[in-house]
Amino acid sequence: MSAPVRIAIDAMGGDHGPEVVLPGVELARVRHPDTSFLLFGDEAAIRPILARYPALSTASRIIHTDVVVGMDDKPSQALRRGRYKSSMWRCIDAVKAGEADAAVSAGNTGALMAMAKVNLRTMPGIGRPAIAAIWPTLRGESIVLDVGASIGATSQSLIEMAIMGSAMASTVFDIERPTVGLLNVGVEEVKGVEEVKEAGRILREEGVAGVNYFGFVEGNDIGSGTVDVVVTEGFSGNIALKTAEGTAKQIASYLRAALSRTWRAKLGYLLARDAFAALREKLDPRRSNGGVFLGLNGVVIKSHGGTDAEGFAAAVDLGYDMVRHRLLERIEKSIVTRLPAAGRGSEPVEAEGSS
Amino acid sequence: MSAPVRIAIDAMGGDHGPEVVLPGVELARVRHPDTSFLLFGDEAAIRPILARYPALSTASRIIHTDVVVGMDDKPSQALRRGRYKSSMWRCIDAVKAGEADAAVSAGNTGALMAMAKVNLRTMPGIGRPAIAAIWPTLRGESIVLDVGASIGATSQSLIEMAIMGSAMASTVFDIERPTVGLLNVGVEEVKGVEEVKEAGRILREEGVAGVNYFGFVEGNDIGSGTVDVVVTEGFSGNIALKTAEGTAKQIASYLRAALSRTWRAKLGYLLARDAFAALREKLDPRRSNGGVFLGLNGVVIKSHGGTDAEGFAAAVDLGYDMVRHRLLERIEKSIVTRLPAAGRGSEPVEAEGSS
Repeated sequence: MSAPVRIAIDAMGGDHGPEVVLPGVELARVRHPDTSFLLFGDEAAIRPILARYPALSTASRIIHTDVVVGMDDKPSQALRRGRYKSSMWRCIDAVKAGEADAAVSAGNTGALMAMAKVNLRTMPGIGRPAIAAIWPTLRGESIVLDVGASIGATSQSLIEMAIMGSAMASTVFDIERPTVGLLNVGVEEVKGVEEVKEAGRILREEGVAGVNYFGFVEGNDIGSGTVDVVVTEGFSGNIALKTAEGTAKQIASYLRAALSRTWRAKLGYLLARDAFAALREKLDPRRSNGGVFLGLNGVVIKSHGGTDAEGFAAAVDLGYDMVRHRLLERIEKSIVTRLPAAGRGSEPVEAEGSS
Repeated sequence: MSAPVRIAIDAMGGDHGPEVVLPGVELARVRHPDTSFLLFGDEAAIRPILARYPALSTASRIIHTDVVVGMDDKPSQALRRGRYKSSMWRCIDAVKAGEADAAVSAGNTGALMAMAKVNLRTMPGIGRPAIAAIWPTLRGESIVLDVGASIGATSQSLIEMAIMGSAMASTVFDIERPTVGLLNVGVEEVKGVEEVKEAGRILREEGVAGVNYFGFVEGNDIGSGTVDVVVTEGFSGNIALKTAEGTAKQIASYLRAALSRTWRAKLGYLLARDAFAALREKLDPRRSNGGVFLGLNGVVIKSHGGTDAEGFAAAVDLGYDMVRHRLLERIEKSIVTRLPAAGRGSEPVEAEGSS
């Protein structure tokens, strides 16, 4: 039997702190009884809530911290105030120290990424980390990265993301050779940003081990599930993610309005309410809650700050899956396979031979 | 009474050419009887279709052209093959020659923009053109630009887009001081791309005549209608637009599937079908068909290539509105108001005084 998964929790993170985080952890624990938890935060706030869940109490240890990183703290501020002593830092630090296999926080993204970078460092062969989101599609689910860790990306960063995204897709969706697309503004090879074109050329012509390259994809391909992994730099990735969330909310609101306008529509709604419940579940943002920080020497999951217990539980589930299916090892393996090829390109002899 | 509006039509543009374009023009003509049309394209193909619409025949003149710009032609190819003689070029040229007030084409975007730039040139004070889309929102409609004319944007380009978008919003929505937001990845002032931050600083601190600046907005603010005008560079704008289209399709598909699964759901759908018809109309991409090329010395409207007659008619309507409400004059006026301020900044005395 495999060892239990140990997850470090930032109990103070998010808009509601332990009131939402702990019930969320309990939901995840029920689904994964082979998990133990380290709860970082204000002991006086955590203890009474934890007391409601005897089984979780048994599976958890509280580590008291005094400092809470604010949801609006800038990354530099958070590091100044919260380094070494905040619940956020300590929970990441538990991963670094080998006391936990993954860290989960609903705290502010910029601060969490800054602390994770400073403390865990990027993996060998990875220039900088990315945030990956799981995106519901018509074909099931896809992974989209980067949804906001960095702005802009070199062709090298895009290729690293293709590798990391592929490893994550294999892990989460259990598929052998997930397809990868580069997000662009047109499917013709002539269009788009230089870096995207160059990354496309390398992936297509030279090939990269562990990456099953499909080609360029456009914004509408994300929702239709054209590829398993969509790679883009963090600005456009974040805008795509938020725009899709906005559109989903907008349509749900239209639908509610349309179905409450006449008695016939209301009656129709009542009859079809199971169908609407299924639809609501499909569109439930809590189901795909959890951004995975990729490219660090450790698993860090960011939960949406405003989520509820069910949403936080989904983020914990994601952390559990990453550990159980050995995400980091898979990425490392892909990176190592890639490194010689990347190295070769810079050797003068090879460069001359190919020119 | 004001003079009739004269619209030049690229009858060969789009996936279906005159078979869709001409019925579309007829639909628009019925709504705007004070319009005359110049139809550019293959006379042998146009004449039999036009014969079905006697009133349109009276209001139109056919100008025969031999060359058709292909939907997959690269811009350079299109210019080489189609300059001076294609239906696309000639229809833009009619605007330049003062024979038409606006040009409408469902041809390929890159070629249309290239020809429009080469032939009409950018307006004085505008560095480069942008494509603006009308976006349905929870509050009504907003304008989003640039949705794909150029990739990347300097702070100056973003400010020009703010001016042009404001002028267009005043024109189309008939509002005095439309609000303008800069699309960014976070609402805090610290985040985002340098150019976006700089444009935000200028709009906020210095102010720009004709621009009622709201601040940064995120992807989800587009659909909620937080501002009347959303400004961004063409890569992220195009991805936002296509992602929203993809999400809308995806949800419509979920909904159809959910409502056909059980007899109760089917019955519910039947009862509520008026509500669904209203929803379908709200989500109908044809209603907001038509990208407006802003910043050129002439009105050019790009219709979606795959649209039907109703969609093409919406693009013609848009061209009509732009002319009737004097979009170009409004933009020119805003630009002129802005120019002295922009000029001042580059005067050495002022620059020294402020450093």
